[in-house]
Amino acid sequence: MSISFQIDATQNAARLGRLATPHGVVETPVFMPVGTVASVKGVSQDILEELGAQILLGNTYHLYLRPGVEQVRQLGGLHRFMSWPRAILTDSGGFQVFSLNELRKVTEAGVTFRSHLDGSSHFFTPESSMEAQIGLGADVIMAFDECTEHPADRERVQQSMEMTLRWAARSKEYFKAHKREVPWARTAEVCPAGHVGTSVPGQTQGLFGIVQGGMDPALRKESAERTIEIGFAGYAIGGLSVGEPRALTREVVEFTLEHLPSDKPRYLMGVGTPEEIVEYAGLGVDMMDCVLPTRAARHGLLFTSEGRVSIKQKRYAGDQEPLDPKCGCRVCQRYSRAYLRHLYAANEVLAQVLNSIHNLSFYLDTMRAVRHSIALGNKAQFFPTEHSRAR
Amino acid sequence: MSISFQIDATQNAARLGRLATPHGVVETPVFMPVGTVASVKGVSQDILEELGAQILLGNTYHLYLRPGVEQVRQLGGLHRFMSWPRAILTDSGGFQVFSLNELRKVTEAGVTFRSHLDGSSHFFTPESSMEAQIGLGADVIMAFDECTEHPADRERVQQSMEMTLRWAARSKEYFKAHKREVPWARTAEVCPAGHVGTSVPGQTQGLFGIVQGGMDPALRKESAERTIEIGFAGYAIGGLSVGEPRALTREVVEFTLEHLPSDKPRYLMGVGTPEEIVEYAGLGVDMMDCVLPTRAARHGLLFTSEGRVSIKQKRYAGDQEPLDPKCGCRVCQRYSRAYLRHLYAANEVLAQVLNSIHNLSFYLDTMRAVRHSIALGNKAQFFPTEHSRAR
Repeated sequence: MSISFQIDATQNAARLGRLATPHGVVETPVFMPVGTVASVKGVSQDILEELGAQILLGNTYHLYLRPGVEQVRQLGGLHRFMSWPRAILTDSGGFQVFSLNELRKVTEAGVTFRSHLDGSSHFFTPESSMEAQIGLGADVIMAFDECTEHPADRERVQQSMEMTLRWAARSKEYFKAHKREVPWARTAEVCPAGHVGTSVPGQTQGLFGIVQGGMDPALRKESAERTIEIGFAGYAIGGLSVGEPRALTREVVEFTLEHLPSDKPRYLMGVGTPEEIVEYAGLGVDMMDCVLPTRAARHGLLFTSEGRVSIKQKRYAGDQEPLDPKCGCRVCQRYSRAYLRHLYAANEVLAQVLNSIHNLSFYLDTMRAVRHSIALGNKAQFFPTEHSRAR
Repeated sequence: MSISFQIDATQNAARLGRLATPHGVVETPVFMPVGTVASVKGVSQDILEELGAQILLGNTYHLYLRPGVEQVRQLGGLHRFMSWPRAILTDSGGFQVFSLNELRKVTEAGVTFRSHLDGSSHFFTPESSMEAQIGLGADVIMAFDECTEHPADRERVQQSMEMTLRWAARSKEYFKAHKREVPWARTAEVCPAGHVGTSVPGQTQGLFGIVQGGMDPALRKESAERTIEIGFAGYAIGGLSVGEPRALTREVVEFTLEHLPSDKPRYLMGVGTPEEIVEYAGLGVDMMDCVLPTRAARHGLLFTSEGRVSIKQKRYAGDQEPLDPKCGCRVCQRYSRAYLRHLYAANEVLAQVLNSIHNLSFYLDTMRAVRHSIALGNKAQFFPTEHSRAR
């Protein structure tokens, strides 16, 4: 078996589910912290465990360049390499390559791109993306897609969608033929200190398809239906957060979700703010990821139950209160706003560490509360207006 | 009372002691991690506690510039500001100002210097250094001294030493008149989350004198004797690690220690490597501090029971072993050399965090073992040659 998904409760469109993976069960709706190159920037794995992170996202493009897929594969896969015993999802590299703009060239065969690190030339295809993701050994891996730029005319969006569908079929075909090559499928694995649990031999990864189709309802519908026809363990909504207004993002998510099967996990890629992840969970999204909590932390922007706090502001220099009085994270339990403000102003690396821990805690607590609420059948409380109030 | 010191055991010149401070007892010989601006770079306070750090060093010069003494004083002093319940020592600012070279001007009254941050002009005197250190509220504070440059001729060294003696007397006088102004002397203090224990009202800081005298045995002797005459709670050996050869450092330490009272703590400022701190503890030094463990960590240089490891080397890219198989720190218990090498190569901030934790653990474990050894009466094992073997 690979992964399986079951729904335990629903509340309107929202679903409380369990995604069983070779590295543990993930309760959904879930927020996945982004660990670009096998590290959630500034936060150690034991703290991620303490925060209750159930699944991390790794970026295939970055890991492919450094330390390299073969290196990670030889070391037993990502879990063992980074000593993370819980679930991992990798993207296909398509979105990252898309972001390179001038450094890439797309053909039917695949994408030629130049490394942002050293300018060296590389070629990604659906097959090589699968090969890389199998070698990295995440629990959930993604079909190789083209993220259509925005704005784009209908013809361009349709052509791009068609190619993504052909790439999806090629991704699935390669995966079917090679899925037994995942590093942990063959042997029980234990990291040096025993932190990574054993995997049951014979288990494989779960492959998700990605729905494209730009901002066009008909194309989104077609993309969804034809992706489902190919058949995947779960379905992602791609091609969003590419510069379109937020209201449009929501609209596209809403009409795309209508065409996704209710018995499979639905993954909305690359969102969002704390309010957005609550909103999308309410619409029936099961999985989300975003760099926002860690990236905002590096810029001193902190999410709290009382709204956003820009900790760099001088007004916090003498503020003895915890960052978020309602937060139980180790940062709010120990340090004052004055100290956090000082660390940021003094450009201390501990600022990034503590800010990231708190923001991730806020995101993970938020999703935990959403799940609790769906279980209780009371989703309404998770559309607070407070969050959006800037301080 | 301020601080007190008692010796529990000796082994040749080495002493096992206990320095009682208003924020807990410090077992000596002790290594003090450096928390320049109220943060040991990259390492959070709970981890420092876990590592067994008993006392941290803060830099008055840096704290004076940012966040400012008055700010820290209003927030209850350094302990409360940074949520560190254990002991703290601050330097006088003299050495840091000395390091500014072109940005300073020394007169009998004090030192005019320009901030390395914004070029603004400031004036430090023995009195203002005491005022700053009382405001910051460390448990142990240092007299304001001039760190004599090296090399310097005898006349220059003598003149500098004489001025340091006059500054020591002025420091003590100011301290005597103002020691009750320490922020925690007046009230019981508890940080927001209760991490900082109460201080007994009426307690004061301990003021240490600093012996100068360059590399000249006679001047060191004279400096020691006249500093002792002024009378301090402990004595530091300053003016070393200023570019002189290591053998000379050791020689100066050895003949200076002969002239320091055996019933007071002896603090050797700014050393050293793991081998050196063991060696100096063997000579009878009770307290040491150095940025080396954290600075080296940032450059990927790691201290282990098997010697130094330059983790950036490609040879570690596939090395599944823990960094130091004999180390019990959370880094060695969880991560492989391959992962640490990757984090460093990928310029991930977690590299600095984990490397710093391990190096501090190695230093603190080393001193713990030294203390254990003195207690057992077997010091010899702490002069290993292994440490100096580069890998």
